[in-house]
Amino acid sequence: MGPVGARVWVVPGGHIPFPTSGPEPEFSGFDQLCVLNATDDRADVRVHVYYTDAEPVGPYLIPVAARRVRHVRVNDLVDPEAVRLDRPYGLVLRSPVPVVVQFLRQDTRLPGVVALTGTMAHPEPAAPDVGG
Amino acid sequence: MGPVGARVWVVPGGHIPFPTSGPEPEFSGFDQLCVLNATDDRADVRVHVYYTDAEPVGPYLIPVAARRVRHVRVNDLVDPEAVRLDRPYGLVLRSPVPVVVQFLRQDTRLPGVVALTGTMAHPEPAAPDVGG
Amino acid sequence: MGPVGARVWVVPGGHIPFPTSGPEPEFSGFDQLCVLNATDDRADVRVHVYYTDAEPVGPYLIPVAARRVRHVRVNDLVDPEAVRLDRPYGLVLRSPVPVVVQFLRQDTRLPGVVALTGTMAHPEPAAPDVGG
Amino acid sequence: MGPVGARVWVVPGGHIPFPTSGPEPEFSGFDQLCVLNATDDRADVRVHVYYTDAEPVGPYLIPVAARRVRHVRVNDLVDPEAVRLDRPYGLVLRSPVPVVVQFLRQDTRLPGVVALTGTMAHPEPAAPDVGG
Repeated sequence: MGPVGARVWVVPGGHIPFPTSGPEPEFSGFDQLCVLNATDDRADVRVHVYYTDAEPVGPYLIPVAARRVRHVRVNDLVDPEAVRLDRPYGLVLRSPVPVVVQFLRQDTRLPGVVALTGTMAHPEPAAPDVGG
Repeated sequence: MGPVGARVWVVPGGHIPFPTSGPEPEFSGFDQLCVLNATDDRADVRVHVYYTDAEPVGPYLIPVAARRVRHVRVNDLVDPEAVRLDRPYGLVLRSPVPVVVQFLRQDTRLPGVVALTGTMAHPEPAAPDVGG
Repeated sequence: MGPVGARVWVVPGGHIPFPTSGPEPEFSGFDQLCVLNATDDRADVRVHVYYTDAEPVGPYLIPVAARRVRHVRVNDLVDPEAVRLDRPYGLVLRSPVPVVVQFLRQDTRLPGVVALTGTMAHPEPAAPDVGG
Repeated sequence: MGPVGARVWVVPGGHIPFPTSGPEPEFSGFDQLCVLNATDDRADVRVHVYYTDAEPVGPYLIPVAARRVRHVRVNDLVDPEAVRLDRPYGLVLRSPVPVVVQFLRQDTRLPGVVALTGTMAHPEPAAPDVGG
């Protein structure tokens, strides 16, 4: 049925909410990447994190098996270094096979309050093949 | 006036909120698919659900009559099997005619709190014709 | 600098929240269309409303002057007939000149709670010229 | 790896929430632009603000260094004049190099309530080169 998605995705509006309230992990604050790999090949997605006042950091590796979805909290991206809390950042994701990427934030800084926001990431339609 | 939309749509960020609070059905937690079929033909939309640790399940069938909209809670997709609560999933929708798909989540896990988030699904512009 | 936007936009996920709480009009529940017309020509945007169980209704007329933005609550679309509350609907907007359309919902069904969600509408890139 | 993004981005649904509650600046109400510049060139992004009943105002200048992200509250755009609170507006951003733009609103008009909504801005894919 042909590939679904794109090989490059961008999220400019990252900012992990801090502090957090409520029981972990369901009500902790987070930014999340949701990656769907509908292909029959494993997608080793490589992520670079862009900051306001420092050079980009990466690649972070998010492996997504063939025909699988993976939801990763940005808070859990720790190698090569933890993405910092309460600081603006942006993300560029590159995959060897087409995938689709959605972004979600859960904000629980106020006790007893859950705020959600999200958007499809921006796909780069004309992206050339990207290697490892 | 020509067809409106695309034949393939993708939602990577599914996760039905659980548990739920407040009176049913208005304040139950849900993920929802909103499909608009502006064509003069019935759209038998076929949905596959992708998981983190199991093969995709489907097709689920969502019939949308000509010139109609249909809003379906993912919680109500039960054939061939119920989409599981509180578990990451993604969706690929395929329609024989162009449609437009929007995704909405209502989260009422905390009593007295309503959180909403949503996004247009990702359209696959170059998708070839898909049959039943 | 060339036209900005598209001539056809689609919103499948309409549903005006009902009932509403809090002081009007700031805290009433609403679905809203936000139309930006960056051209030097007036845009008489024509809207058709799609329902679950009835034929589409329209056109509703939303005039947007040259170089202006207009935010219209769907609750206020009353000619040819009021868009019904608490009922699923979808929208197709057609403009004689390129515009950009964003969708916003404010849900205040629970007293003391404000929930927001929104998305860019879906643009129809290949739409042919549409007349009045 | 090739440029990422587009040179023109549009946000029709601006409206800075007013009044605001809670401690500044974390819980003030705001509309925010999040710009990612993954290129090796500085992006002097120029913004025009469109209103309901007045000519567009601008350009506002948002410089984004090479390989950096920048999150700017619309409340802080004051030159050539402050963007007015509690009033509908739209935005057109133009960059000399490809960037990606996301829009976020934080609404804290009700004490103890945080509502978030956002969306990727609308990219203008066929935009010609724009100069300063």
